[in-house]
Amino acid sequence: MPELRKDSILDRWVIISTDRAKRPSDYATEPVVIKGGSSCPFCTGNESKTPPEITALRPDGSRPDTPGWAVRVVPNKFPALQPDGNAERTGDGLFVRVDGVGAHEVIIESPDHQASLAQLPEKRIEDVLTVFRDRMVDLKNDPRFKYVLIFKNYGLDAGASLEHSHTQLIALPLVPKQVREELDAARDYHRRHQRCVFCDIIRQEKQTQARVVSEDEHFLTVAPYAPRFPFETWILPKQHGAFFEDAAAGAYLHLARALKQLLLRADQLLDRPPYNFFLHTSAMREETELYYHWHIEYMPKLTRMAGFEWGTGFYINATPPEESARALRELELRAAPAPANPGS
Amino acid sequence: MPELRKDSILDRWVIISTDRAKRPSDYATEPVVIKGGSSCPFCTGNESKTPPEITALRPDGSRPDTPGWAVRVVPNKFPALQPDGNAERTGDGLFVRVDGVGAHEVIIESPDHQASLAQLPEKRIEDVLTVFRDRMVDLKNDPRFKYVLIFKNYGLDAGASLEHSHTQLIALPLVPKQVREELDAARDYHRRHQRCVFCDIIRQEKQTQARVVSEDEHFLTVAPYAPRFPFETWILPKQHGAFFEDAAAGAYLHLARALKQLLLRADQLLDRPPYNFFLHTSAMREETELYYHWHIEYMPKLTRMAGFEWGTGFYINATPPEESARALRELELRAAPAPANPGS
Repeated sequence: MPELRKDSILDRWVIISTDRAKRPSDYATEPVVIKGGSSCPFCTGNESKTPPEITALRPDGSRPDTPGWAVRVVPNKFPALQPDGNAERTGDGLFVRVDGVGAHEVIIESPDHQASLAQLPEKRIEDVLTVFRDRMVDLKNDPRFKYVLIFKNYGLDAGASLEHSHTQLIALPLVPKQVREELDAARDYHRRHQRCVFCDIIRQEKQTQARVVSEDEHFLTVAPYAPRFPFETWILPKQHGAFFEDAAAGAYLHLARALKQLLLRADQLLDRPPYNFFLHTSAMREETELYYHWHIEYMPKLTRMAGFEWGTGFYINATPPEESARALRELELRAAPAPANPGS
Repeated sequence: MPELRKDSILDRWVIISTDRAKRPSDYATEPVVIKGGSSCPFCTGNESKTPPEITALRPDGSRPDTPGWAVRVVPNKFPALQPDGNAERTGDGLFVRVDGVGAHEVIIESPDHQASLAQLPEKRIEDVLTVFRDRMVDLKNDPRFKYVLIFKNYGLDAGASLEHSHTQLIALPLVPKQVREELDAARDYHRRHQRCVFCDIIRQEKQTQARVVSEDEHFLTVAPYAPRFPFETWILPKQHGAFFEDAAAGAYLHLARALKQLLLRADQLLDRPPYNFFLHTSAMREETELYYHWHIEYMPKLTRMAGFEWGTGFYINATPPEESARALRELELRAAPAPANPGS
């Protein structure tokens, strides 16, 4: 019997096919292959091919827009939003619009064209996460922005137009629908129960263990009860906190460890699938500390959205999260292949 | 300057790139090609390859599950939901589930494997729409069902697993999120203005004409102000009504004409793109007559969803609706190619 499950936070339902559960090999996706190419604007030595850098980690103290960096942040060359203008709403009868004011940046995760995020050493992933934090703290100073979304598209089928490993950041003049719904639902839950819904999820998932992929002292990696997509997995910090950028010292190294583990496991189990992940943190300058709880949502791109999903806002998922979590959890991780050029 | 536009009904925003508007030829999609194959379970003569038919239009009075039909409805062989069981909510701590009770049916639009819906004569499309109505009226008798979604996936990239032209129907034990949000927003609008928001949209779009694709006495075909996808287009009945199945006599023929026009135009302009459309009608047995307004939403599959869309619930659309409507409107329609086997 299939099951309709409600997301534990949002009013979003998924149909889980429990009878004919699809296993990893039932999803036919092309593994992401890095082809390389000397003209990549994200490669070290090609710094002049991007707009001037916004910031970079430069352990060797080198000058901006020259080699020597470990992580580099540049404006997106084809930005979805523009930095100039104001964010006032204007109307035209029924219709409401805002100038497309915002920031659209690219975080280049490594100078090495071949290395995927999963293959970077934990310390380097920590660097990337720390740069996320720094950019958020900086963009918070601009009162026009209400939200910063950090998201990653990996592989062409997941929307990446360049293969050199990178994450994107968009600062928005309004709070996204998805985040607003999470914030509202978490606030309502807190009003009723005087507890954080994410903390309660962590407690319940730890008890049953059925959907846990991995766990350490600091992070729980878990398939959500009602995943939109097969093998969708969330990383939740055990330490309650609404704002990613306010996480405790050391948190980013622990998160780097959890994220690397998840990416390596998914890469091995699903044969380097294209994927997306995004970071959900609180809306800026809102009093959400009591009830919101930042986290990462990871989703490999194994299926297509179709008419049912567009028409309903519901999802059909042929792999129950108990199955996806078990497969990811029980996997014996092979040693990761060394990046092509580990010195870079 | 890009623009952020709010959907005129929902709290859903899109980023419209107004500077570098993408034209039809900028989207690289493979045209849908019908390959054919004698083993197709939807072809006439292969009636035994589907589960027994639920209903069919049989102008020649032939027996069920034999040739002679014009439109045939069968249960989906791999249903997302099952007809047996009850629709009670059960809980497990934080988690809420319902047995996956529902109906999942396939409406085979023509016995001819080669004919797409766009290529059928208007009268045949009217038959298909009349069958949609009949199925809705029938399923309404089952008190477990709260909503019937009719949707079409055309082409592999839009989620169709069989190429023989068909539409799907899913009856659900709860009202989908997307529909609930539309119903709530339309109700709130009506409370404030004592008018239907869809009727107001029709009025305003007719005034400006900027997003109108085509129009006749009965239907307005229009690009929405804040389309999620390039070339997204809606068909709105000018006659107010919440329930598709209660439309006036003759409405389905007029709708058939509007739908055929839109599909032919999009097929020619975008080179037979994969597409989805769905029918939004009121939730069953709700008092929505004053404020809801049934309609069809059509979206060719030209782009991919990625991390930004998943993380925000917002969309980035590189073709302003004024451009997509103009291109569809100004197109000179070639005579449609005759279906391979027009007699069938």
